[in-house]
Amino acid sequence: MDAIKMANLTNRDLIHNCDSFPNRVSQPVAYAELLESYVLFQHEGKTLGYLLPKVVEALRELPDDWHITGSAASLASKHDTFEKRSEALKRTVEKWRDEQRFAILKGWRNELYPCYAGPKNVVFVMERSACCLFGLVTYGIHMNGYIPATDSAPLRMWVPRRSPHKQTYGGMLDNTVAGGISYPMTPYDTLVKEAEEEASLPAELVKKNTKAAGVATYFYISCSKQGGEGGWLQPEVQYIYDMVIPEGTVPKPNDNEVESFELLTVEEVKKALAAGEFKPNCALVMIDFFVRHGILTVDNEPNFIEICARLHRTLEFPLP
Amino acid sequence: MDAIKMANLTNRDLIHNCDSFPNRVSQPVAYAELLESYVLFQHEGKTLGYLLPKVVEALRELPDDWHITGSAASLASKHDTFEKRSEALKRTVEKWRDEQRFAILKGWRNELYPCYAGPKNVVFVMERSACCLFGLVTYGIHMNGYIPATDSAPLRMWVPRRSPHKQTYGGMLDNTVAGGISYPMTPYDTLVKEAEEEASLPAELVKKNTKAAGVATYFYISCSKQGGEGGWLQPEVQYIYDMVIPEGTVPKPNDNEVESFELLTVEEVKKALAAGEFKPNCALVMIDFFVRHGILTVDNEPNFIEICARLHRTLEFPLP
Repeated sequence: MDAIKMANLTNRDLIHNCDSFPNRVSQPVAYAELLESYVLFQHEGKTLGYLLPKVVEALRELPDDWHITGSAASLASKHDTFEKRSEALKRTVEKWRDEQRFAILKGWRNELYPCYAGPKNVVFVMERSACCLFGLVTYGIHMNGYIPATDSAPLRMWVPRRSPHKQTYGGMLDNTVAGGISYPMTPYDTLVKEAEEEASLPAELVKKNTKAAGVATYFYISCSKQGGEGGWLQPEVQYIYDMVIPEGTVPKPNDNEVESFELLTVEEVKKALAAGEFKPNCALVMIDFFVRHGILTVDNEPNFIEICARLHRTLEFPLP
Repeated sequence: MDAIKMANLTNRDLIHNCDSFPNRVSQPVAYAELLESYVLFQHEGKTLGYLLPKVVEALRELPDDWHITGSAASLASKHDTFEKRSEALKRTVEKWRDEQRFAILKGWRNELYPCYAGPKNVVFVMERSACCLFGLVTYGIHMNGYIPATDSAPLRMWVPRRSPHKQTYGGMLDNTVAGGISYPMTPYDTLVKEAEEEASLPAELVKKNTKAAGVATYFYISCSKQGGEGGWLQPEVQYIYDMVIPEGTVPKPNDNEVESFELLTVEEVKKALAAGEFKPNCALVMIDFFVRHGILTVDNEPNFIEICARLHRTLEFPLP
């Protein structure tokens, strides 16, 4: 695997730092080789995620809850309801947290995330910080707030800097509003809630000025800036929104997650991207904004087609 | 392979009618099975396209120009320049045209398309109508012209109906402007040229009011409406543009490709999409417009994530 590059980053580097799991179509050999090092986490014949050897080893110590064959692990068949499966997973990951078995669980969130086996079929819920131990797909929303270009001023974007004390990616730049979707919230409800909590943007303004703009999908291998040991597998789905922020409306931190907001021109955002100042998936969402707004085009970006495809990766796991 | 569905189409059906080649990530078994029926068209170890058995059979009759092993075909190694390769391909496909070997060549265009082995590396050029015989990636532009919503009127789109006499997809609905990119034109030059030719939109207005908006990639298996026998493989890259058409500017046919233009509301476009009235790849580009403009969202489209990913398929061939 390539090392993560941190400065003078091209847009392709930025995508690569976030969509870092080899792609089965464009990198079939690297994909097959990497996959051999994992065990499949399965439910009724469907693969929900990939397990690192150290996780499989830890699951082997829990034969009451887990059934493990050579290449696949699944919950014991007696866990045959949403509640029983969720309970068994809770038991499993709380044990690991209490034993301090995996450093990533120091970031325990007390938030439950859903795992889908298909449309409208939630198999179980799981503590947010533990999802990456099982390689589960997680879901979030990202919104870029901007002031459109006028005759006298260029387009500008409201960019927050994360609190240096935040457990994950402290001090890095972010999208205007972003957050994970806890069960059973909808993407839109999450957007409205986080806009209030992270940026003091009133619900009414968000509802009036925000437009859905698609979804970004990618497959991240975590780095140590996330807290913990790094190397975890994180296929992610981010619902994307654009919000026109009226001149005079100033986003303000409202909880301890954001340190400050700055109004940046596209050139300033590009410079910060190239310097590696953005949290990896926020860089990817910013590139998606640039593509949709005609800032990044085939005329100024040599890897335009690859970048557009990788912003919308086909994930190999069941989706909602 | 699923049959093409023609009425009461969902957005997923519309994508499926255009992105019809099985995906290696989400349909690994169907992909592997289908691939076994083809021979790879290779150049210096890179696969440029897939060849149907009947094409391989025809290539075997030309041992001077073609080298064929069990699973791969390539141009004879003496064809070691762009010019020699282009000349050999010209000889090959003109022979087939004159012999009426493949019906699709009745649509001979006298337009040359480039085939890339990688960025800025054009291996050869090839008659447009013959590209699908070799499964080569082709490139085009699609532009949707629209009147933005106002306080008193909803968003409306300028939709042309193709001439019933057009060889391919006669009588079907299209995007406002669309066209293939002939060698060595750029996407933007093609947009400006086609906007004048197909819709009488002056270059100056196009340059002022048009915004790049990404790229759609998909892998189409052609149907008989395209002319010829159907079943050809067409991986395609379409550069996408949005144009704000000022109230009062009316696109008008300027060549014999378009019959008429109509100004449709989103609801009217949706109805025509569901009725199968749009040319398959124009339906896909329309869905991309709906996603980017917040018309299609996770709240009203059950297969939202899949659709967004399939609009931006990772193609397994070298790209420019």
